[in-house]
Parts: sequence; structure tokens; C-alpha cells
Amino acid sequence: MALIIQKYGGTSVGTPERIKNVARRVASWQARGHRVVVVVSAMSGETNRLIALAKEVQAQPDPRELDVIAATGEQVTIGLLSMALMDIGVKARSYTGGQVKVLTDSAFTKARIVSIDEGNIRRDLETGHVVVVAGFQGVDEAGRITTLGRGGSDTSAVAIAAALKADECQIYTDVDGVYTTDPRIVPEARRLETVTFEEMLEMASLGSKVLQIRSVEFAGKYKVKLRVLSSLEELGQEGPGTLITFEEDIKMMEQPIISGIAFNRDEAKLTVLGVPDRPGIAYQILGPVAEANIDVDMIIQNVGHDGSTDFSFTVPRGEYAKATALLDQVKGHIGARQIAGDNRIAKVSVVGVGMRSHVGIASKMFRTLAEEGINIQMISTSEIKISVVIDEKYLELAVRVLHKAFELDQVPA
Amino acid sequence: MALIIQKYGGTSVGTPERIKNVARRVASWQARGHRVVVVVSAMSGETNRLIALAKEVQAQPDPRELDVIAATGEQVTIGLLSMALMDIGVKARSYTGGQVKVLTDSAFTKARIVSIDEGNIRRDLETGHVVVVAGFQGVDEAGRITTLGRGGSDTSAVAIAAALKADECQIYTDVDGVYTTDPRIVPEARRLETVTFEEMLEMASLGSKVLQIRSVEFAGKYKVKLRVLSSLEELGQEGPGTLITFEEDIKMMEQPIISGIAFNRDEAKLTVLGVPDRPGIAYQILGPVAEANIDVDMIIQNVGHDGSTDFSFTVPRGEYAKATALLDQVKGHIGARQIAGDNRIAKVSVVGVGMRSHVGIASKMFRTLAEEGINIQMISTSEIKISVVIDEKYLELAVRVLHKAFELDQVPA
Repeated sequence: MALIIQKYGGTSVGTPERIKNVARRVASWQARGHRVVVVVSAMSGETNRLIALAKEVQAQPDPRELDVIAATGEQVTIGLLSMALMDIGVKARSYTGGQVKVLTDSAFTKARIVSIDEGNIRRDLETGHVVVVAGFQGVDEAGRITTLGRGGSDTSAVAIAAALKADECQIYTDVDGVYTTDPRIVPEARRLETVTFEEMLEMASLGSKVLQIRSVEFAGKYKVKLRVLSSLEELGQEGPGTLITFEEDIKMMEQPIISGIAFNRDEAKLTVLGVPDRPGIAYQILGPVAEANIDVDMIIQNVGHDGSTDFSFTVPRGEYAKATALLDQVKGHIGARQIAGDNRIAKVSVVGVGMRSHVGIASKMFRTLAEEGINIQMISTSEIKISVVIDEKYLELAVRVLHKAFELDQVPA
Repeated sequence: MALIIQKYGGTSVGTPERIKNVARRVASWQARGHRVVVVVSAMSGETNRLIALAKEVQAQPDPRELDVIAATGEQVTIGLLSMALMDIGVKARSYTGGQVKVLTDSAFTKARIVSIDEGNIRRDLETGHVVVVAGFQGVDEAGRITTLGRGGSDTSAVAIAAALKADECQIYTDVDGVYTTDPRIVPEARRLETVTFEEMLEMASLGSKVLQIRSVEFAGKYKVKLRVLSSLEELGQEGPGTLITFEEDIKMMEQPIISGIAFNRDEAKLTVLGVPDRPGIAYQILGPVAEANIDVDMIIQNVGHDGSTDFSFTVPRGEYAKATALLDQVKGHIGARQIAGDNRIAKVSVVGVGMRSHVGIASKMFRTLAEEGINIQMISTSEIKISVVIDEKYLELAVRVLHKAFELDQVPA
């Protein structure tokens, strides 16, 4: 008998019929002897509807009152799911974030969890209840309603799992696990049995949007065992999903060198050519970009020569025009020769904790791309990933050849 | 400078534009130096939408979880109104019932208020805030969300007014006060400057649906000064509405004998003819009706003769068929000769605390109706009202001639 936290997102609870399906799945876990706490999001579309309503009243909604409004989305779902459970004979009880209580700081619309009082939940579990908790929300010290920001329900689930020292935190999504790459591009892509937290972080930030990155960080910090599962599979025919593990739990012999090929099409690159190679130049270029609230991803500065250097970075494609205009404004001030850019690029990465103990991964990656005539425009590396920027039109080809070159279509021995 | 509680119903806050109108009205009261607490309902249609959603998940929704869901309706409105106030430069803060806190019993979906902690509200008023409170809701001792049932927002407003010892509790509706009768039937109907609580109770229960009867009882009990006002009038051109007063506050010389003519078309009568005139017969007839949850309004039993009597009562028209079927079942058991009924009747009442000290009201009423050839089918009286049942087709005529006979179209001297 285990203590399981399950999290169902907006799509999984998007209609009364789907809520009933979730209830049946939860009931099947309880019937197998497990204690279950369910964390739910608002029904899909509901949070957007509420925010749009708020903006009709106040163009820039007051964040404290916006949270009061937004929190109602999950509150409706907890009531509905509890009813659906009772309707099939399962004892259930709902909790808002404030009722739990999930104490957060007072950063309205993007609050961070400070602590969780697990006493109420424990008491209900002991009397055989399924406990249904509103994700995404909490209360601050003053008792005001807060929300954790978009995707916060994953974080709520992980935090509750940590507080209750749960055996497993199951995140139900519309995919049946984490794949070596996107099966729409590489049909041979395989579901991974396990993936490490570090890899998952790289995968998520690189565009494999299975889990909210914040919740993965949180799970890593508090050693919560996370599993990604599908909420669409038939009851009784569920697969095992993908378990997100700690590196120290894995026997390295069994560990493949590379776990997956991640990619992101939503990128544009900007290059500032011929800037003086002097201290402070990176800040002078990126300062205005950060102030404009534009996320910068890769940042590359090469060794300079003749006292000047080139500086490149990537931004989300939707911010390309804005970022270009900003750089054109500061160009004279920073003494740059020219601003160049390209919004038809893509980023492809190989990810794997195994590369720490294996040499030659980078050269294998570069050779594989070269053999297909794919030019590499930028390179960036970390401990467990190598990312390259290429022309967007080669994206699918690059992912396919890399997936094959690293034998990701083969089940590890 | 007064402390004012204002209550706005679902229609008054039914759209973002109307919410902005409410904000301007609230601001105008604050600008005149008053401290204001606003109690709001869910946007019109929202509570019904939520209940329908709940019923899609569970045909007979669990009342505890239904309250969790239903309470979100008002929670959205408090956030929106607070935003609208801030948007026009008024400091505002929202409170759910639980945040106030409004402590209720645990009768989910029809809870009763036990106490109100007014500390938070007072603190915010002292710092110049308008306090916006969700009506219709509270929490029980265990911290579970409760609702007060339909129309409960009026009761919330009155209870908060009582707790804060407010100078006035203003109920904003879509009419500009309480009228001597329905102006759609009698164009000469006048707005009453004042009406007593007792009269208001009779008027409300007789079909003048301006205020929820429970809130009127509550206001009477806690001596809260209630005023009915229109939320549709232009700012700066508002009328005084109708003040609901305590009888002892009124100089009897100024008090008209009759305050209004109330009526109710939603009535049907049933008569059990020739039942044995013995103890317990009323219970034997009405017991099954009560068990079937049918509201009984007037009950009349006349003096019997020859050991048998006739027993009549009225029910809502929609329950007529059900009540008739029930009586047909018990007819033999109670030894009745016959069951008769009529669902084309209406009830007309004259209401006024003045009739206590004046004789001849009843005979004037009966004579007025007789002069028009209107037959009276049943009569029932209380301290401050006389009700008659007549053929529905004479309803408008009866209301008009009574309104004129009691000189309700004349402003009192």
C-alpha cells in the first residue's frame, strides 16, 4: 500500500465526462489498496476565460484581485471531481489551497510555496477518503488568496507529495511518458522507462513541454519521485509511463549515454557584430533586452580579435522584431558595427547524463550533421547537453539523423 | 459620515459594464464621506450555470461539494468589483465569506449565519478602503465552505450591517422602492417612503419579490435599518427609495391605514368536502402534503355541522396536480366525501399595520369587491393583512379597485 499523489491537468478535467473518467482512474488506484491525493487544474479554457473577464473590468488587473478570481477555476474542479468520486461510491473531500493550507509568499499571480500543513489531508486519508486539492493556489500570511502562476498545479502536486512524503507523484498528461524525441518527427522514438531530473530539466527547457520546469526543480530538491503518465489510456491497460529519477539511483552500466534529442523551433538569433571587446559590453547589450522582459536563451561570445568581437544570442521568435528594434537603438551607444539576425532558425540538442563520462559525443553530433550538409550556426554546451542552432528547414532531418546516430531507436541492452 | 452597507444583486453586476457602474455608485457614496461595505451576488446566470455543471457530474449533487462550486460565483464578482473600484482610484479589497469570516452552521446549501468576525472589515475601513464581501456564503466550524441558499446575499448584507452596527443597509435592485401595488397593473401606484418590517414581510410573502423574506426577518431581529433602492438610476439623480422601519419609530398619526395591495397569481386551491369533524383530521389531510414537500399557504376550516366539515388550502399552482393526486389517495382513509379543486385562482391582500387600530377595513374590502361583482372564495386574516381568494380573471380589476378604495394613489397628508 502506497501513498500516491496524482495530478490531472486542464485537458484531463475539461468536461464533465472527462472528470468522471478521472474519478474512475482514481478509484482504481484506491481499490488496489493505495491512499490517493488528487491535485487538479481548472477545466481547460476556464483560467483564460476568467482572466479575459478581469481585463474587461481593469485593463491591467490588480494582481491580488486577479488571484481571487483565477483561483475559482480550480475550486470548481475540486467540487466536481469530489462529486464524481462520491457518485461511484468513493469517499472524497475537496480542499482549496487556503483550506489545506498551502502557505505561499505574497507574490500574487506568481507566488512561491513556503510550507504546507498536511494535517487535514492526513486525517482524511486515514478515514479512507480520497483527498482532492485545488492546484495552482494558496494563501499568504495575511490569508489572501494567491496563485502560483501558469503550470503551478504541477508544483502544487510535487509540494504536497514532499509534505506528505508520498511514495510517488504521478503527473497525468496527454502523452504516455517522456520520449527520446518527438514521435511525430521520428516514428521510431521510444518511451523512456526512466529519465533523470537533470535530463528532464534540459528536455523541458528545450521544448519538450511535458512537465513544468519549476515542478521538476522542486521535485529534485525535495527528492520526490515523479512519474509522467497518460490520462487517456484505457483503465486496466495503462503503461508504466516514465519515472523521473535521481542520478545516484541509477546503475551507470544500464544508463544510455544519450537519453533524447530535444528541439525548439520557437527561436530567433541576433548578432551584434564588431563591438569593442571590453568589460561590460555583454551587460550593455543584454540590459535593455532584459528590461523589455524578453527571455534570452543561448548567449555566445567568441574570442575577440583586433579589439573587437561578435556577440550572439537567441530569443523567442515572437520577440524578434522587438529585440531587433532595441538593438538598433543602442547600436551607436555600444559602438557596434552592425546588427544581424535570423528568425528562421531552430535549436537541436542531445541530452544525457551519460555524456559526462563519455568523450566524443560532441564530435559524433557535429559529424552526423556535417554528413547531411547541415551547417551549424551556433554551439552551446552544458554538463549534460549539447545544443546547436541550425537553419529551421533542416530541423526534422537533424532530429532524425541524430536519433539514429545515437541509437535511440534501440532498446538499451 | 455614516457607515453604509450596500448590496448589489446578480443583475446589477451581470456584465463588466454594470460592475463598472456599481463601482461609480459606490465611489460617489465614499466621496460624500461615508464608509462603505459592498456585498455582492454572483453575476446573473452564473449560479445556475455552476449548478447545471455540477448536475452533469452527479445527478443529486453532494451538498458540501455543491457549496464549494457555487461559492465561486460570488468570489469572481468580489474580485471584479474591487478591480473596478481601484480602476477609478478607490482603495478596495475583496473578502470571501471564509475570509471575513462569516461563521455558519453546517446546513450546506441552506446554511444559517452564526456569527460574523467584523475585525478585518473594520481595519480596512479605517484605512480608507471600500470593503467588498461575497454574499451568500460562509464557512462552518470545520472550515468548510457553506452557502446560505438562494437570495442569501440579502441576508449576508443584513448580517454584516448588524455585526458592524451600520447606519443603514441599502439593498439595490431593479426597482426604485416598494410600491403600494404593482405599477404594471395600477399606473397610479405610489412608491412608499417607508414601510414597516411587518408589512414588508407580508408583502414579500404575498408575491412582492423585492427583498428576500429571510433578510427582512433578520433585519427586524437585529434592528438593521434597511433601504430598498434602484441600481438603475443615473448617478446624482437617485431617489430616496423605500426605508423599511420599525413600527415604534413611526408617529402613528402619519401612518396610512393601508400600505399596499399585494397579490399572488401562483396559487391553486384544494377542498376536501365532507370530512368527519374530529381531532387530527387536519394533520391527516396535510401530513402527506407536507411529506411530499409541497408548500401550503392559506389553510381554512370552517365550523362543521352534522359531524362533518369542509377543509380548504392553497398550494403553488405547479404543485396542484401532485397535491390532487395525493388527496385522492388518502380520501378513503380520512373518510372524505369528495375532493374539489381549482387552479385558476388568485390571492389579493390588503396590508397595513394601521388596520390594527382601525375597524372596518375588512368590510370596506369586501364591499369594494362585491360592487364589482367579484365573488370571494376564501378569506384569511392576520394582524396586519386581509387576504381573499378570487377567480384569477378578476385579479387586475380587484387590485385596481382596492388601490383606489383605500386611496393609495393619494400622497398621505
